Amino acid sequence: MTLKSIRYESGKLEILDQLLLPSQSQYIEVKGVEDGWRAIHKMHVRGAPAIAIVGCLSLAVEIQPEVFTDKKTLRQEVEGKLNYLVSARPTAVNMKLAADELISLVNALDKDETVSAEQMKLKFLSAIETMLDKDIIDNRAIGDAGAKAILSHCPKDSMVRILTHCNTGSLATAGYGTALGVIRSLHSLKRLEHVYCTETRPYNQGARLTAYELVHDKIPATLVCDSMVSALMRARNITAVVVGADRVATNGDTANKIGTYQIAVVAKHHGVLFYVAAPFTSIDFSIPSGEHILIEERPEHEMSHVADHRIAATGISCWNPAFDVTPASLITGIITEKGVFGPGELMQHHKNSSDFLHS
Amino acid sequence: MTLKSIRYESGKLEILDQLLLPSQSQYIEVKGVEDGWRAIHKMHVRGAPAIAIVGCLSLAVEIQPEVFTDKKTLRQEVEGKLNYLVSARPTAVNMKLAADELISLVNALDKDETVSAEQMKLKFLSAIETMLDKDIIDNRAIGDAGAKAILSHCPKDSMVRILTHCNTGSLATAGYGTALGVIRSLHSLKRLEHVYCTETRPYNQGARLTAYELVHDKIPATLVCDSMVSALMRARNITAVVVGADRVATNGDTANKIGTYQIAVVAKHHGVLFYVAAPFTSIDFSIPSGEHILIEERPEHEMSHVADHRIAATGISCWNPAFDVTPASLITGIITEKGVFGPGELMQHHKNSSDFLHS
Repeated sequence: MTLKSIRYESGKLEILDQLLLPSQSQYIEVKGVEDGWRAIHKMHVRGAPAIAIVGCLSLAVEIQPEVFTDKKTLRQEVEGKLNYLVSARPTAVNMKLAADELISLVNALDKDETVSAEQMKLKFLSAIETMLDKDIIDNRAIGDAGAKAILSHCPKDSMVRILTHCNTGSLATAGYGTALGVIRSLHSLKRLEHVYCTETRPYNQGARLTAYELVHDKIPATLVCDSMVSALMRARNITAVVVGADRVATNGDTANKIGTYQIAVVAKHHGVLFYVAAPFTSIDFSIPSGEHILIEERPEHEMSHVADHRIAATGISCWNPAFDVTPASLITGIITEKGVFGPGELMQHHKNSSDFLHS
Repeated sequence: MTLKSIRYESGKLEILDQLLLPSQSQYIEVKGVEDGWRAIHKMHVRGAPAIAIVGCLSLAVEIQPEVFTDKKTLRQEVEGKLNYLVSARPTAVNMKLAADELISLVNALDKDETVSAEQMKLKFLSAIETMLDKDIIDNRAIGDAGAKAILSHCPKDSMVRILTHCNTGSLATAGYGTALGVIRSLHSLKRLEHVYCTETRPYNQGARLTAYELVHDKIPATLVCDSMVSALMRARNITAVVVGADRVATNGDTANKIGTYQIAVVAKHHGVLFYVAAPFTSIDFSIPSGEHILIEERPEHEMSHVADHRIAATGISCWNPAFDVTPASLITGIITEKGVFGPGELMQHHKNSSDFLHS
């Protein structure tokens, strides 16, 4: 059974408290936007898609029991509360995008004279619920497309061994996951022999979160240090690497968690397939290549300490980039809910979509 | 001033307590073989050469004040105590080799009728002190040869940037270090702009020990995660990688701390020089290639925990090889106290040495 980190039914929202993972699995109830803001701000929930979904759902549970007699009140309440939710973690772009989209929606509904206040509320709630459902549906599509692409390289009925990096699963998305979705799909097809996940220093998302999801889902898995990937590729017959993406440039260059680029280099050296799995919206057609992606540098404390325990010698300085950019030349394919593309095919597909939109 | 982890003068031995590093720098006195055995067994001292030196020196300080009237008593005492010291960490081969050598020496001296009991004691003490001195002299020779080799690739008076892995410094040897000796030599030549050291998961020897030595010696240094080496090579202009070796095969294949192979792969990809620095005795001419080197797998606990703090999800299995093998094809040169050799030149040099010995 796939791990469910967001439990939602009309009027009720619970989230798996990621601050307690992996030592404790405890759900906390989010009763409204105050709770939602706190859950995001204090990082009880993390991962850009998950933050947006939890923020919006916290607003849904808050307005669900309310009765609105006029549309303006509803519009003003929604707008104010969405902006408040965006302020919980201003760097999380997905929450901002979702807020903008929902604000446009309530503005349109407010102007539409055929819609009553109660209908407006229901349509608004439905839009949020659709976001949750769509993210999971898209992830399942990514998972299935990725599994198919990987298996197309393998003999019929053979089993595959996959390596992944960082966390791209139910804990980072609305559910199922992107790269971890591909792994889940391979597992459900009974074609996955084993998955290896890296620790993902310095924040250990692999050791803490991916390992937790794999154990939960009873997927045969082994944890390795980030430094062991080359040795692993020589010792075990790894079929493919599958990682997520924070941002993909038009030419296919991919920004993702620090360490991804190194895995791509060693995959190339060992002739191992290297796939990126991400929603199509992660492709940023406004930038031609990875050179235009600015890499955030994180505080030294993340590297020098584990919890409050100092692990590095006092006085040493640390270099702690959060991401790196994997050049398109090292990437076999980019797996999206719209299909799998070679890095060089993205631009063409974008042109086709634009043609379609403009036709 | 180079960090001195072993302080010895006739009759007195103090060692830097590595169990307290990097949070505390405290020397403990080793008054005899009981203390020596405990220091090795409890890992107050680690690193194969350092273990052998501390073990032998603990015997030196013990017998130094003793008066021997007959040679047999001295021989028996030395033999018994050396075997006892070997038992402190049976896997540390250097202590066994040193013990064998010293036992041969006392047997020879015992048989030599021109040598008195007191002379025998002095010759024995002198042999141990020579071991300490020789290791440091060899390391300085390695350091100077390595610095010269690296600088031969660089424009005159240019500064270099070096990356190293694990700990190969004063804390692992009798002093100065092997790969870290090369870095110290470059620094003393005022040609070192910066050194980067990896954390070296899972046991963090880089973050704890190498970083400690670099801070102590005021060498400009930055710590990076093992996963960041590729990103570092793209962002900064790294001149060379220098690492140590546990064992070098006749063809130049090199077993060293897990993660070394991965760094060699990414160095090749980025066109960065990759050197191995080790005493000539690390070259094992009894094995033709790295395939004959068995890789020890260490307990999962080292990966899943930091001190007593669990960092990995419960139930996940871990793969924890202690070493990996870097193929000779990825190695620029092997730096020894006898000079720097291309991996393919080792066999030739071995033949020459044999010819010399047999001539």
